[in-house]
Amino acid sequence: MSTHDSRSPASVHVAGIGNALVDVLAAAPESLIVELGLAKGSMGLVDADRSAAIYDHMGPGTEISGGSVANSMVGVASFGGRSHYLGKVRADQLGEVFVHDIRANGVGYTTSLAADGPPTGSCLILVTPDAQRTMNTHLGAAVHFGPDDVDPSVVTDAEVLFLEGYLFDPPEAQEAFKVAAKLARDAGRKVAVTLSDPFCVERHRAAFVDLVDNHVDIVIANRDELCSLYETDDIEAAHKIVAERCPMAVVTHGPDGSFIITPDVRVRIQPEPVAEVVDTTGAGDQYAAGFLYGLATGLDLATCGRLGSIAAAEVISHLGARPQVSLAELAAPVLNA
Amino acid sequence: MSTHDSRSPASVHVAGIGNALVDVLAAAPESLIVELGLAKGSMGLVDADRSAAIYDHMGPGTEISGGSVANSMVGVASFGGRSHYLGKVRADQLGEVFVHDIRANGVGYTTSLAADGPPTGSCLILVTPDAQRTMNTHLGAAVHFGPDDVDPSVVTDAEVLFLEGYLFDPPEAQEAFKVAAKLARDAGRKVAVTLSDPFCVERHRAAFVDLVDNHVDIVIANRDELCSLYETDDIEAAHKIVAERCPMAVVTHGPDGSFIITPDVRVRIQPEPVAEVVDTTGAGDQYAAGFLYGLATGLDLATCGRLGSIAAAEVISHLGARPQVSLAELAAPVLNA
Repeated sequence: MSTHDSRSPASVHVAGIGNALVDVLAAAPESLIVELGLAKGSMGLVDADRSAAIYDHMGPGTEISGGSVANSMVGVASFGGRSHYLGKVRADQLGEVFVHDIRANGVGYTTSLAADGPPTGSCLILVTPDAQRTMNTHLGAAVHFGPDDVDPSVVTDAEVLFLEGYLFDPPEAQEAFKVAAKLARDAGRKVAVTLSDPFCVERHRAAFVDLVDNHVDIVIANRDELCSLYETDDIEAAHKIVAERCPMAVVTHGPDGSFIITPDVRVRIQPEPVAEVVDTTGAGDQYAAGFLYGLATGLDLATCGRLGSIAAAEVISHLGARPQVSLAELAAPVLNA
Repeated sequence: MSTHDSRSPASVHVAGIGNALVDVLAAAPESLIVELGLAKGSMGLVDADRSAAIYDHMGPGTEISGGSVANSMVGVASFGGRSHYLGKVRADQLGEVFVHDIRANGVGYTTSLAADGPPTGSCLILVTPDAQRTMNTHLGAAVHFGPDDVDPSVVTDAEVLFLEGYLFDPPEAQEAFKVAAKLARDAGRKVAVTLSDPFCVERHRAAFVDLVDNHVDIVIANRDELCSLYETDDIEAAHKIVAERCPMAVVTHGPDGSFIITPDVRVRIQPEPVAEVVDTTGAGDQYAAGFLYGLATGLDLATCGRLGSIAAAEVISHLGARPQVSLAELAAPVLNA
């Protein structure tokens, strides 16, 4: 076993843990968002009955594997990196689809499938004509991802362990989160967390503040999430607070680019140009993929941010939260410079 | 009960019966088609093991409800017509997706779901860089659609009953096909059949020739299927044969338009212009939708053909076999002329 002082080289660049979900996308008029009482643009947690009721009102759908950190692991693999994903599905049809897709994307996956209990989790996504998405997650089998599913050989063998803020929603996964973070740090690895969603931050603010202060090396958030964490409307103030409290913060500002913040420096990253923004979902997941792949391969912070921007620009130019072209090819001019 | 001589007006425009399938689409290099030994551009029947083996080799996929005549019924509904679909799925996750989608598209669906037996049928579709599709159908629960699933009140209450040639693959469905056709004709309704695929015609040529000669009012086929039916390379000869043997034939010639053939006339229909052909799958299904909707609402043959061409042009301009915009709106200039 490696230690902080004499650790062996990791065989995986990034290992990720998150809620494994299959997305169900359907076009929806604005009126349906109102009728269903949904908070447009956000992610809401729903139980099985509410999920079924929303599905009944949705138009014909398209099913595609998703899950925030799962999307990021697919992005790391698309850069040519070695990534591994841990997340729980049931051994049902959508679970088989999820496992097929993540492996077909070149991501390692070894979590045991649940033989019974709730079905594979799903995220019902209503896409309004303004290209915004309103997400309704039924966690399903993901609630049974627990500490026993944290494979120590995986989390100690990755340069970076990447954890989803959404993991704080299911209680067992929250436990698993803590176990995994400790295993990784004890092995001298870096631990990164994404805050996932402003509402997720609200649900778990005290725990997230503690995490950022004491248990992780890198926090990844967008402007709204960071402001929610520190209960301020002033993003500059939030930047200053996080710089004092975490070794590294990555803060995305949408079309205004992003910042990489350490106690010593703040690096501004320009956004990549995009011909047409079709769908912004997945931008954060793919930014994280590029940034963490860069970090795991020892690149400087500015280049890590550049890789994040390239991946985000690709994913917002089409529908769906996973890259449709090779990110390694897109990033070749930067990586070979 | 209505009779041929004094039949009551039908409350449904078109009722369709077919193999209910969920499509799994994935991009594939040409080399994979060769490696898997597939016949590019065709539909092949595969068992569960072969389906699993092909899926293992496929890239990450997108799931979307399909089935040839199911696609047509969605098209009829998109024209504003009343359509009903009969086809068998199991009460599993993909079966629920199929039922949700067909109803969300405005198509009536009342077939009972199988409680056990094979899973909901699937069609693994490999899309090569030339935009061609190679389809691998595992019929699954569709093999258990039988005569008992033919709801007499549905098939006798539709102006046109539309049957899929693929129904001749599962033996019970073949029986159901015959029962449904007889019920509809005895009630004075029209029966249409699509020949589905040149390989399907080869598998069932004698039965199809008998059908066209004796049991249906309208045969819908593309050039290759009609030539296969009459074992000729000469499409003009095939036109002449079918004119003598069936009250009406609709023959699509791809980018060269289509022909409506009766013993007395042959109407040539020009194709609708398309800016870019993205994916030709579903062209025949949607042509049939427009043609049969026109026929069921009493339009003249040239206008029926024009509706078919409009629907086909829409569906080949994007990925997927179901319309993405309202066909009623697209056809409004023709319907309101």
